[in-house]
Amino acid sequence: MSLRQELTLELIGDPTRPVFIDLAESLIREIQRGRLRPGQILPGTRALSRTLGLHRNTVDAAYHELVMQGWLVSRASRGTFVAEDLPSAIRTDLAPLPHTGRHSRPSRRLESVLTITDGTPDPRLMPRVELARAFRTVMTSSQFLSRGSYSDSQGASALRDALAEEFLNARGLSVSADNILITHGSQMGLFLAASAILSPGDGIAVENPGYPFAWASFRSGGARVVGVPVDHEGLDVDCLAQTLRNDPGIRAVYVTPHHQYPTTVTLGAGRRLKLLELARQHDLLIIEDDYDHDYRFDSAPVLPLAARAAADQRLIHIGSLSKLTIPALRLGYVIAPPDILKRMIEMREAIDRQGDVPLEQAMALMIRNGVLGRHARKARRIYVERRDFLLRKVREKLGDAVTFSAPAGGLAVWMKINPCIDGEDWRISAKKNGLYIENGNSFFIESKNDASYLRFGYAHLDIGEIEKAVCILSRYETRFG
Amino acid sequence: MSLRQELTLELIGDPTRPVFIDLAESLIREIQRGRLRPGQILPGTRALSRTLGLHRNTVDAAYHELVMQGWLVSRASRGTFVAEDLPSAIRTDLAPLPHTGRHSRPSRRLESVLTITDGTPDPRLMPRVELARAFRTVMTSSQFLSRGSYSDSQGASALRDALAEEFLNARGLSVSADNILITHGSQMGLFLAASAILSPGDGIAVENPGYPFAWASFRSGGARVVGVPVDHEGLDVDCLAQTLRNDPGIRAVYVTPHHQYPTTVTLGAGRRLKLLELARQHDLLIIEDDYDHDYRFDSAPVLPLAARAAADQRLIHIGSLSKLTIPALRLGYVIAPPDILKRMIEMREAIDRQGDVPLEQAMALMIRNGVLGRHARKARRIYVERRDFLLRKVREKLGDAVTFSAPAGGLAVWMKINPCIDGEDWRISAKKNGLYIENGNSFFIESKNDASYLRFGYAHLDIGEIEKAVCILSRYETRFG
Repeated sequence: MSLRQELTLELIGDPTRPVFIDLAESLIREIQRGRLRPGQILPGTRALSRTLGLHRNTVDAAYHELVMQGWLVSRASRGTFVAEDLPSAIRTDLAPLPHTGRHSRPSRRLESVLTITDGTPDPRLMPRVELARAFRTVMTSSQFLSRGSYSDSQGASALRDALAEEFLNARGLSVSADNILITHGSQMGLFLAASAILSPGDGIAVENPGYPFAWASFRSGGARVVGVPVDHEGLDVDCLAQTLRNDPGIRAVYVTPHHQYPTTVTLGAGRRLKLLELARQHDLLIIEDDYDHDYRFDSAPVLPLAARAAADQRLIHIGSLSKLTIPALRLGYVIAPPDILKRMIEMREAIDRQGDVPLEQAMALMIRNGVLGRHARKARRIYVERRDFLLRKVREKLGDAVTFSAPAGGLAVWMKINPCIDGEDWRISAKKNGLYIENGNSFFIESKNDASYLRFGYAHLDIGEIEKAVCILSRYETRFG
Repeated sequence: MSLRQELTLELIGDPTRPVFIDLAESLIREIQRGRLRPGQILPGTRALSRTLGLHRNTVDAAYHELVMQGWLVSRASRGTFVAEDLPSAIRTDLAPLPHTGRHSRPSRRLESVLTITDGTPDPRLMPRVELARAFRTVMTSSQFLSRGSYSDSQGASALRDALAEEFLNARGLSVSADNILITHGSQMGLFLAASAILSPGDGIAVENPGYPFAWASFRSGGARVVGVPVDHEGLDVDCLAQTLRNDPGIRAVYVTPHHQYPTTVTLGAGRRLKLLELARQHDLLIIEDDYDHDYRFDSAPVLPLAARAAADQRLIHIGSLSKLTIPALRLGYVIAPPDILKRMIEMREAIDRQGDVPLEQAMALMIRNGVLGRHARKARRIYVERRDFLLRKVREKLGDAVTFSAPAGGLAVWMKINPCIDGEDWRISAKKNGLYIENGNSFFIESKNDASYLRFGYAHLDIGEIEKAVCILSRYETRFG
């Protein structure tokens, strides 16, 4: 029997799941019971969609899913086949339909666990098809062919050009492509900055609470991380001044002025000027991490320190494109004085030689053709709705279990957990109910296990998921409230 | 006048270039003389191909090229437009057709310079469309959507699984996905290895001549690079033994046993055993760089040291997928003992947190569906032809200007330049004639400017280009010969 043209199939018909996942599960069931055999060809998506009365895109999506999971194999211009390398557990005789559509290979399950991250974008909103198209355009261009070899460790010039223009228009940063280094995520920017300016034993002042991944970068080169308190206006610059007097070994200060990580507050205007002045007096280098510049909701984005700094100020500005796409696409950038940038580029060469040029060029294309800008505007609209919905729900359902201030931007809300509640226990209880809370107890330098704060990253959750997450949290709270 | 439907165009008609480049140049000419104006819509590829009597793919390729170069902008579901941001030099009135099709913006020229690299694959052979398709499959899979957040800094498990299987089948390496770390190119593997096992001041023995990018990695962490001579059987292990006796600070040895870099020789069987034994005696860690394992032409690939080492041997095996694709896609891997691997993963997290998951998963798909394997077999067939052609041409045209041994594999031939010839001058003369020779004088630790060797990377050049390159080299030679 050839299945090339027609395959009749009984769908599992689970209404809680998208149709394409239902179809994917149904196909897995047929493979498991041996009706579809390893190596067998499947009908084309057009034929199967006709047979089943589904939209062709649905069938397409199901096939994609199964190729990704390894159940099916797609061969160019030949068709889609059942994979040959399926595990021996699969029956080769026709078994009866199992009671449940869930299959048995744990690593290939279609489940999605509800997660509170520390503030990540929603990959479902991302212009994925457009990015895939841009990648294809780059891969098939003749320009790319002539440059398939190793190239500039500073990053694709197309992307540096596009960013330089963006920076001037949107952030008041007058830089040229020569002043920009493309990095493998903003994390690499932090690592390179540390290795360019800090020697073992040097101190670097950081916000406390702050961003532990930055501290890890600084420490990996042997630097000492020195915490400075943060209040409702961001880094306490007077405390920084005091710290500098006590510790002459401090060479640099690391700040997140736009939306302080993790508290989300914006560094006050007066403090900005004081910080720049203080850095100048103490010959201190400023590392400015502008990690979610694009997500400002309640006012125009505040210009970065880099836009306000004088030409001779020693400042490294670090940013990310991953928050506009997905964290799993590692694209960041650095703007730095020429001597520092040169050292960073040399270090970058020693670490991994260069970035993924096709990905860098595809992103340049996405900036140039306006797709990324449109996406940013759309994402802002959606995230502000989600933020407002979250705040409303938290007020409604969590009562005085948490206190917080509404953030003016960013992808997370910083909440203080009521001291009567054992934060760690709350987390464990949430996990049992299907809500996994990432991070949470490592924002403070000194605390070993301080679970009394929650950075609630909401942007990757839709309205329904936010409601469900808050509901799970509230179930615990009522036990204590 | 709307161009949406029809655009008549006089092609430049340069027979030395592919038709799509000719079409692209013709469109640029029309933009430059102002006939096509910024923001104007272009006809669809189907319409234009009909009007011009060209294949639609040709028009497609020309549009892609111009989008990449920034002349055109493609807007999803709306069409292709002349870019708005063209430089002011472009006329807005109709200028006469220029005499030459070459346009004036140096950064956007379509020229391809003939280059001798140090041994890189041919990006034209790479299954680019299949990779773009795999990337799209990953980007649009629901599995990806649920994992768009930060993930495993050890690398996508799909890719580690696929590699573990490959390694067992093709290299006799019995490893599981847990033993593998995916890196951003093999360069990152070298950097991480150095930072995991070497402290400032520690020595690492390396082949001399050898791979300068590895030395840069080792030195960036403060290690001392100690050269050990290489002969026709690879690293001189007796010399290494002597060096170890004289320098007790040496902690590790870095080798390229399969095709020694740069000389291309294979480490002899006896030396392999001796090296393993010596490492065991001196508690020396071996870093094995198997950078072009897949390109063996004259015999079966020699199994790596890692396959021969005992379970307790301290060995880090480093490899690359970039030689199977293009260097600009940074994908490498590391196999190491658990304690070392753990330190490397921690360091990786500090450097850039994780890899590009979509790219890693796309590559896993390419391994699983057999595309990468087929590509490797095809590339081997083509490269062995190119190698043989190169050796014949060099013998014919360069006479005794260079001496060499035919390499059993790899993407380059190691040539010694006749002492009567000034290598540096030869390079300069070649460059004037359109042949750019990358690298060449930094393979030796001690030499400042030793231009007496040439590592002739030929694989990225087709037969015609190899002939042209040798011809340019021979023109100089005859002046002296």
